[in-house]
Amino acid sequence: MFYHDKQLQYTVRVDTPSPVFAKMLQQAIGGVEGEIRVCLQYLFQSFGARGPAKYRDMLMETGTEEIGHIQMLATAVAMNLEGSPAYLQEEMAKADPLLAATLGGMEPRQFLSAGMSALAADANGVPFNGSHVYASGNLAADMYSNVAAEATGRVLACRLFDMTDDPGMKDMLRFLITRDTMHQQQWLAVIEELGGHPGSLPIPNTFDQAQEVEGLSYTFLSTGVAGVEAPTGRWTSGPSLDGRGEFTTMVNRPLGQEPVLAPPIPSGYAELQQMTDEGATR
Amino acid sequence: MFYHDKQLQYTVRVDTPSPVFAKMLQQAIGGVEGEIRVCLQYLFQSFGARGPAKYRDMLMETGTEEIGHIQMLATAVAMNLEGSPAYLQEEMAKADPLLAATLGGMEPRQFLSAGMSALAADANGVPFNGSHVYASGNLAADMYSNVAAEATGRVLACRLFDMTDDPGMKDMLRFLITRDTMHQQQWLAVIEELGGHPGSLPIPNTFDQAQEVEGLSYTFLSTGVAGVEAPTGRWTSGPSLDGRGEFTTMVNRPLGQEPVLAPPIPSGYAELQQMTDEGATR
Amino acid sequence: MFYHDKQLQYTVRVDTPSPVFAKMLQQAIGGVEGEIRVCLQYLFQSFGARGPAKYRDMLMETGTEEIGHIQMLATAVAMNLEGSPAYLQEEMAKADPLLAATLGGMEPRQFLSAGMSALAADANGVPFNGSHVYASGNLAADMYSNVAAEATGRVLACRLFDMTDDPGMKDMLRFLITRDTMHQQQWLAVIEELGGHPGSLPIPNTFDQAQEVEGLSYTFLSTGVAGVEAPTGRWTSGPSLDGRGEFTTMVNRPLGQEPVLAPPIPSGYAELQQMTDEGATR
Amino acid sequence: MFYHDKQLQYTVRVDTPSPVFAKMLQQAIGGVEGEIRVCLQYLFQSFGARGPAKYRDMLMETGTEEIGHIQMLATAVAMNLEGSPAYLQEEMAKADPLLAATLGGMEPRQFLSAGMSALAADANGVPFNGSHVYASGNLAADMYSNVAAEATGRVLACRLFDMTDDPGMKDMLRFLITRDTMHQQQWLAVIEELGGHPGSLPIPNTFDQAQEVEGLSYTFLSTGVAGVEAPTGRWTSGPSLDGRGEFTTMVNRPLGQEPVLAPPIPSGYAELQQMTDEGATR
Amino acid sequence: MFYHDKQLQYTVRVDTPSPVFAKMLQQAIGGVEGEIRVCLQYLFQSFGARGPAKYRDMLMETGTEEIGHIQMLATAVAMNLEGSPAYLQEEMAKADPLLAATLGGMEPRQFLSAGMSALAADANGVPFNGSHVYASGNLAADMYSNVAAEATGRVLACRLFDMTDDPGMKDMLRFLITRDTMHQQQWLAVIEELGGHPGSLPIPNTFDQAQEVEGLSYTFLSTGVAGVEAPTGRWTSGPSLDGRGEFTTMVNRPLGQEPVLAPPIPSGYAELQQMTDEGATR
Amino acid sequence: MFYHDKQLQYTVRVDTPSPVFAKMLQQAIGGVEGEIRVCLQYLFQSFGARGPAKYRDMLMETGTEEIGHIQMLATAVAMNLEGSPAYLQEEMAKADPLLAATLGGMEPRQFLSAGMSALAADANGVPFNGSHVYASGNLAADMYSNVAAEATGRVLACRLFDMTDDPGMKDMLRFLITRDTMHQQQWLAVIEELGGHPGSLPIPNTFDQAQEVEGLSYTFLSTGVAGVEAPTGRWTSGPSLDGRGEFTTMVNRPLGQEPVLAPPIPSGYAELQQMTDEGATR
Repeated sequence: MFYHDKQLQYTVRVDTPSPVFAKMLQQAIGGVEGEIRVCLQYLFQSFGARGPAKYRDMLMETGTEEIGHIQMLATAVAMNLEGSPAYLQEEMAKADPLLAATLGGMEPRQFLSAGMSALAADANGVPFNGSHVYASGNLAADMYSNVAAEATGRVLACRLFDMTDDPGMKDMLRFLITRDTMHQQQWLAVIEELGGHPGSLPIPNTFDQAQEVEGLSYTFLSTGVAGVEAPTGRWTSGPSLDGRGEFTTMVNRPLGQEPVLAPPIPSGYAELQQMTDEGATR
Repeated sequence: MFYHDKQLQYTVRVDTPSPVFAKMLQQAIGGVEGEIRVCLQYLFQSFGARGPAKYRDMLMETGTEEIGHIQMLATAVAMNLEGSPAYLQEEMAKADPLLAATLGGMEPRQFLSAGMSALAADANGVPFNGSHVYASGNLAADMYSNVAAEATGRVLACRLFDMTDDPGMKDMLRFLITRDTMHQQQWLAVIEELGGHPGSLPIPNTFDQAQEVEGLSYTFLSTGVAGVEAPTGRWTSGPSLDGRGEFTTMVNRPLGQEPVLAPPIPSGYAELQQMTDEGATR
Repeated sequence: MFYHDKQLQYTVRVDTPSPVFAKMLQQAIGGVEGEIRVCLQYLFQSFGARGPAKYRDMLMETGTEEIGHIQMLATAVAMNLEGSPAYLQEEMAKADPLLAATLGGMEPRQFLSAGMSALAADANGVPFNGSHVYASGNLAADMYSNVAAEATGRVLACRLFDMTDDPGMKDMLRFLITRDTMHQQQWLAVIEELGGHPGSLPIPNTFDQAQEVEGLSYTFLSTGVAGVEAPTGRWTSGPSLDGRGEFTTMVNRPLGQEPVLAPPIPSGYAELQQMTDEGATR
Repeated sequence: MFYHDKQLQYTVRVDTPSPVFAKMLQQAIGGVEGEIRVCLQYLFQSFGARGPAKYRDMLMETGTEEIGHIQMLATAVAMNLEGSPAYLQEEMAKADPLLAATLGGMEPRQFLSAGMSALAADANGVPFNGSHVYASGNLAADMYSNVAAEATGRVLACRLFDMTDDPGMKDMLRFLITRDTMHQQQWLAVIEELGGHPGSLPIPNTFDQAQEVEGLSYTFLSTGVAGVEAPTGRWTSGPSLDGRGEFTTMVNRPLGQEPVLAPPIPSGYAELQQMTDEGATR
Repeated sequence: MFYHDKQLQYTVRVDTPSPVFAKMLQQAIGGVEGEIRVCLQYLFQSFGARGPAKYRDMLMETGTEEIGHIQMLATAVAMNLEGSPAYLQEEMAKADPLLAATLGGMEPRQFLSAGMSALAADANGVPFNGSHVYASGNLAADMYSNVAAEATGRVLACRLFDMTDDPGMKDMLRFLITRDTMHQQQWLAVIEELGGHPGSLPIPNTFDQAQEVEGLSYTFLSTGVAGVEAPTGRWTSGPSLDGRGEFTTMVNRPLGQEPVLAPPIPSGYAELQQMTDEGATR
Repeated sequence: MFYHDKQLQYTVRVDTPSPVFAKMLQQAIGGVEGEIRVCLQYLFQSFGARGPAKYRDMLMETGTEEIGHIQMLATAVAMNLEGSPAYLQEEMAKADPLLAATLGGMEPRQFLSAGMSALAADANGVPFNGSHVYASGNLAADMYSNVAAEATGRVLACRLFDMTDDPGMKDMLRFLITRDTMHQQQWLAVIEELGGHPGSLPIPNTFDQAQEVEGLSYTFLSTGVAGVEAPTGRWTSGPSLDGRGEFTTMVNRPLGQEPVLAPPIPSGYAELQQMTDEGATR
C-alpha cells in the first residue's frame, strides 16, 4: 500500500521559464527512457516477484522513489510554462512568422490539452506505452532491463542538463543524474550477488546447456560477403565470460533448407494463379 | 548494402503442425523480446555508430544475422498453420463450442489478414512498435539494452521450447537459444573491453561526477513508512561497483518544497472557480 | 513524495486459480477503464493543479490510493496463475486440441513475457496507452473525466464479479466496487461545490457566452432525412440545465458553403491531371 | 444508413492562412478531445444501444452531426495551408534558420503525407486511436463519457479561439463552441431523465449495494503519512449525493496481507537463484 | 453535411448467434482492412481533394456509403452476442476448462468494455489506428491505396464467408463482397480515366523523369549472392508498362561509399571510449 | 539467409547539414510511406508466399534491396545532424526565442534519445507500426498494396526533393525516386502476368461471383440527399473493367431493417432504466 506527503523529494526551481525546455522534459516523463516507465517497471517486477523476498522489497523501495521523480518532472514542466508572457499570453493571438517559431519549439498539447501542464507522453507527444514495462519473471533479465533503463535515462538527463542554463533546472537534473548513478549500481549489484557472469549467464541459467546446438554457443558468426573482414575483439577469441567455453569466429553459411510452403487452402482465397499443385516450387 | 541466398540459416521443420504454437511463435517475431526488434536495434545502432569502427561493424554483422532469424520464425509459423484439416479446413464452417475452443487458441489474423502466414506482431496480435528500437548513441547504454533484449529473448525461447513437443520445433528453438547465448556474451564482452564496471560506469562516463549531489550517488534510499525495514544486500554496504564510492542506506525524506503553481492563464480556460489570486494555496 | 508499506490495502485471496480469470483481470489493470489509468490521471491532475489547493490535495490522496489497487490486481493475476498444474505444467508440452482450448482462454504473454505475472496491458494484451490520462487543466472537465473513468471502471468490476465464483476474488472485487462507489461521489461532490449545473456549465464557464452563435446553444439539431422523426426528451424542451436558455429542436440544414480548395501547389506533386486552373470545380 | 449533401454545416472561411494554426486544428480533428472521437463514440453507442430506443436515436442524430464537424475542421486545415507562399512555396528549398523556425511551427506530415490537407491525427501527428471510443453498454456511464468528451472538447475549442485572430476561424470556432454547449446539456439531460444522482448512482445502479464492503462506500480514505492533513470538502461530511449514505473520512490503513507468491514454475525459466522452497519469503 | 435514416443498407440477420464469429467480425470493423478505415480514408480524400471536383464528389458518395457498412457490421456483432445462454449467462460464473475454451474463442472486451456490442478495434482487440487513413493528395496514389484497401477487404470478407454457415451472416457478407467488387472497379476506373499506365505512371507523373538516375528506372536489381539466380518475368524484359523504357536486369553492386560518421559531440554524452579523433575509422 | 558488405547502395553526401531536413527524412525511414515498411512488407510477403516460387523470389530480391535504403536514409539523417555548431553545440545551452525557433524545426529525440542519429519513427517521432506490413496471402491484393506503398513513397521522395537545395541530398533522393519508378512497374507487371484486369479482378478471383447479390456488383450507389446529383465518369456507364458486367448508377436506398437489439443481459450491468421488456423499442 502507498502513502504520500506534500513535499517534493528534491527542490524544483525554475529561474527563467522556457516552454521549449518544458517540451524537452517530457522525454524524461513519458519517453522510453523516462520515469513513468521505470516507476511501473520496478513496481510490476515487485508485484510479480517470485524467489527471495529481498529483491521484491528492494524493487518496491525504488519503484516508490520513482513516483516522486515523475512528480518532480511534472512540476518542472508546469513551472517552465509559467510567467513567460511574450510566448504565451500577449502573442498567442498573432499568427505571424515569429509565433510560428515560438510555437514550433513548444509541445502544443501542453497548452491545448493540459492547460500548461505535463502530459503522460514523450517529447514528441507520443503517449507513454505500457509495452516498455519489462518484468520478465527472470531476475537477471530484469536487472539488465533495469540497467538499460537507468543507463539511457542518465544519458538523457545529461543531455537535458546541457540544453539548459537555468540554475534551478540544472540543480534538479543534477539530483536525478545522481540517483541514476546509484540505480545503475543497484541492479548490477544484484548480478554480483547472483555470482556475476559465471553465476548468471547464460540468462536464463536454468536451461540445460547440453541442449544447445554444439559449436555455436560461443561463436561469432560473420555475415559479410566475400571480401568483408569480420571485426575482432574480446568476443572473437579467449575464454567466454561465463567461463564455460572459448570464443571463436566462423563465416555464416546456411545450415537449413530452401523453405517451400504448401499451396494456399481454398478458404484462404488466394488468387487462382497461386493454386498450383507444386506448392511454391516452379 | 545487403544480400541474400535462398536457404535458411538453420533447418525449420514441423512434424505436427499446431496453430496454437503458430500463435505463440509470434511473440518471438514481433514481440518486445522478438527478432524484428533486435534486428532493427542492431542495424540502427550500426547505422548511427560514432567512435571506433569495429563496434559499428560488429553490430552490422549480427543485425544481418537476425534478419535470417525473422525468416526462420516466419517460416515456422507458416508451416505450423499447414496440413491440420481438423482445425482449419473441415471445421472452419462450424460455429460450435469445439470450434470456439479451437479458434480460441489461434491468432485469428494469421488466417483473416495473412492467409496462414506470419504477421509483424506479437502473440496477441499487437503490431511491432518501433519505439523498442533502442539506439542511444552511447555505446555502453546500447550494449546493456542489447543484453536485456537477448536475455528476455532467450527466456522467451526457453519458454516456447517447453510448450512444444514437436521435434522439429524443439530443434529450431535449440538453435535460436544457442545463438542468444553467444549474443549475450558478445555485448557484455564490449563492456569488458571498455574496462568493465570501473571503465564504463556510471553511464555515460563523460559526465563530470563532481556535479552530482553529494552523498546520494551510492546511497540506497528507503521509501518504507515507519516500521518497514529496508532490505539489505550488496547494494547497501561495501565499495561501489565502479570503485568510486561506498554504498550506504538512508531513509528517504523530502529535500524539496511543497509545489505551488501559478493561477491559470486566462487563455487556458480553466473554470472560474480556479482563477484565484492565491495560486494553488488557499 | 511517496512511501509504502508491505501489506495490501485489502486481502487478495484466490481459492481456485483460474488462468482465464487472470486474463480478464488485465482489463482492470491496463485497460482504458483500469487502475493504471485512474492512478496516473489523478496524480497528473494533482501535479498540474492550478487554483484552490484542496482539489490538488484530494487528487493526490486518491491517486495514491489507486497505486495500491494496481498492486492488488497484479497480485490477483499472479495468484490466479499459480497451482493449476493441469493447465500450465503437465500439459504445457502437448499441442493437442484440449491445450488449444485451454491456452485459448489465457493471455499468452502472462506466461511468455512475464513468467506468470501481470502485464501493463489490457485483457487483449494491448499495452496501456498514456493518452487516456486526462488532465485538462479545467477542474470541471477533469471531474467529469474522473466520473466517466470510475463509472466505466465500476461497470467493469461488476462484470468481472459475475464472471467468477471464487470467493476470494469476489471479496476483492466487492472491495474495489465499494471504492468506486465513493470515488464517483467524490468527483461529483466537487461539481456540487462549484455550484452544480448553473455554477459549472457550460464547461469552461470562463468563455463569454455572448460570443456563441445565437440560437444554437440550446437547440437539438436533427440530422434525419425526410420522414425520420427526431426523438424527444428532457433535451428538446423546457429550461436548459444551466438555467440560461430554453431547449428547442430544429432540423439540421447547411449554413455553410460547398467547400472549394485551391489547386495543388507544384511541390506537392499531385498528378498532372489535378493541376487545373479551376481548382476543385469543373 | 447515411446520406450527405455538398454544403458545410457552417461557413468555413480563412482570411489569413496560417500553417501554424493548421497544425493546432489537428487536435480538434484526431486528438483525444476531437471530432473523430465523438463522432465514432456516439455512433458506436447508438449501434450497440440496448434499452429505450429514444436514446439510440438521439445518439445517431448527434453522431451524424459530428461527421460534418470533422468535415468543417478538415476543410479549415486545407484552407490554412493555402496561399502562404512565403512559408511553403518560395522558401521550401532554403535550409536556413528562418525556415527551421517556419517549419518548426508546421505539422510536416500535412505536407509530406497529405499534400497540404488534414490528417486523422492530433496536433503532434499521433494517429487517432480507437480505444478512445467509449461505448460501455451502460447508459449513465456513456453519458458521463460523453460529457467528459464535450467538456474537454469545448475547452480545446476555446483555447484555439484565443490562439487566432483570423475572423473566419474565430467564427467557425464560435459555432463549434456553441454546439458543444448544447451537447454537454444533452447528455446531462439524460442523467436528469434517469432521476439525477439518486436515480443513476452508483453506476451501474443494478449491482446490489448490500454486496459492498460495509463502511467504505462513502468514506474518503486519506493516504497522507503522519502529519499530512486530509483536505475537507463536500466529500468528507454530509449526506452522500445519492442520498443513501453519509460521507466520512478515515486514515487509510492496510486491511490486507503481505503478498507472498509461489516459487517460479520450472517452465517459466527464472534464474536458478529464484527457485527457493520458501517462495518469496526468506 | 451528413444525414441518416433508421434502416440498414442491407438486412442483418443472425440465425444462430456465435460469440466466436462476433470476434472475427471485428476485423472487418476496426482492422486494417476494415470499414472504419475505408470510410475515413474516402472521406479524408474527399475533404482534402484538389483538382477536378468530380473525384471529390465520388469519394464523398462512397465514403458516406461506408458509414452504413460500419453500422451493419456493428449490428451483426451485437446480434451474434445475443441469446446464447450456454456461453454467456449460465456458464459465466464457472471457472472450468470448458469455460476457458468458450471464452478463449471470444473477444473479452466485447463483454467487459462494451456490454455485448462492437468495439472500434480489430479481431485481436487492437484499437483502430488513424495512420491507415491514406490521403496523399496525389489522385493516382490514392486510387491505388483504395484498390489495396478494397482488395484486402474483399479477401477478408470471403474468408469470413467461409468461416460461418449461418445463412443470415452469409447473406450479409455476400452483400459486402458485392460492394467491394464494385469499389475495386471504381478506383481502377479513375486510373483508366487518367490514361491508364502511360497516363498515370510513374506516380507522381509531375516529377521530371530527366532528373532520375540514368539506367536504373526500369532495371530489376538482383540482391542474391553469387550462385543465386534472379527470377525472370514480365518485369525483367520487354517494354516498361508506361511505354517509356525497356526492362533490364542487373546484379546489385554498391555505388556508394562506406559511411563514416563524425565523432560524437560532447553534449551527446557518448562513452569516453567513443570520443576518438578518427571518427568511426579505426 | 542474409549478408552485407560495407558500402552503401548509392552515395550519401550532405553538403550543408540541416537538422530540419534530418527531421523530414524520418518520414522516409519510419513513416507509413517509408522504407522500414516496404522492406518488411516485401520480406513478409516472401516469407509467407504460397504458389509460384518466382514471386516469392522476386519479393525477397527487392525486400533485401530495401534494407539498404533504410541504411542510406539513416546515414543521411546522421550526416545532416553533424557540423552545424550554430544549431547544436554553441547555442544548445541558451533558452532564448531563437533557440526555440531552431529547436522547433528539429526532431528532439534524434538528439535526446539517439545522440544525433536516426530513429525507427516518422517525421513526428511516431514509432514505426508493424500493422502497415501488408502481406495478405493473396498475390493480387499484395501487389496493389505494394503499388500503393511505392506510389505514396515516390510522392514523398519528390516532396523531400523540393524541400532541399543541398546537392548531395538531391542526388540521393534522385536515386530513391528512380528505384521507386521501377518498383511501381514491377508490382504492376505481376498484375499483367496474371492477365490484367480480366485475369485478376475481382480480387480474390477465387470467390464464386454467382454468390454476389444480383445487380449491385457494377453499380455506383449515390448517397446524396434529394437535389445532389451523382458525379459521372468511367465508373457510371460502359463495360466493367473485368469485362463481366456493365456499370450503372442507382440512388442508395435502405434494403435492410431498422436494427433492434435485445435488452441487456443482467451480468452486463446496464442501468436499471435500460432493462425494459421491449428491447430497444419504446
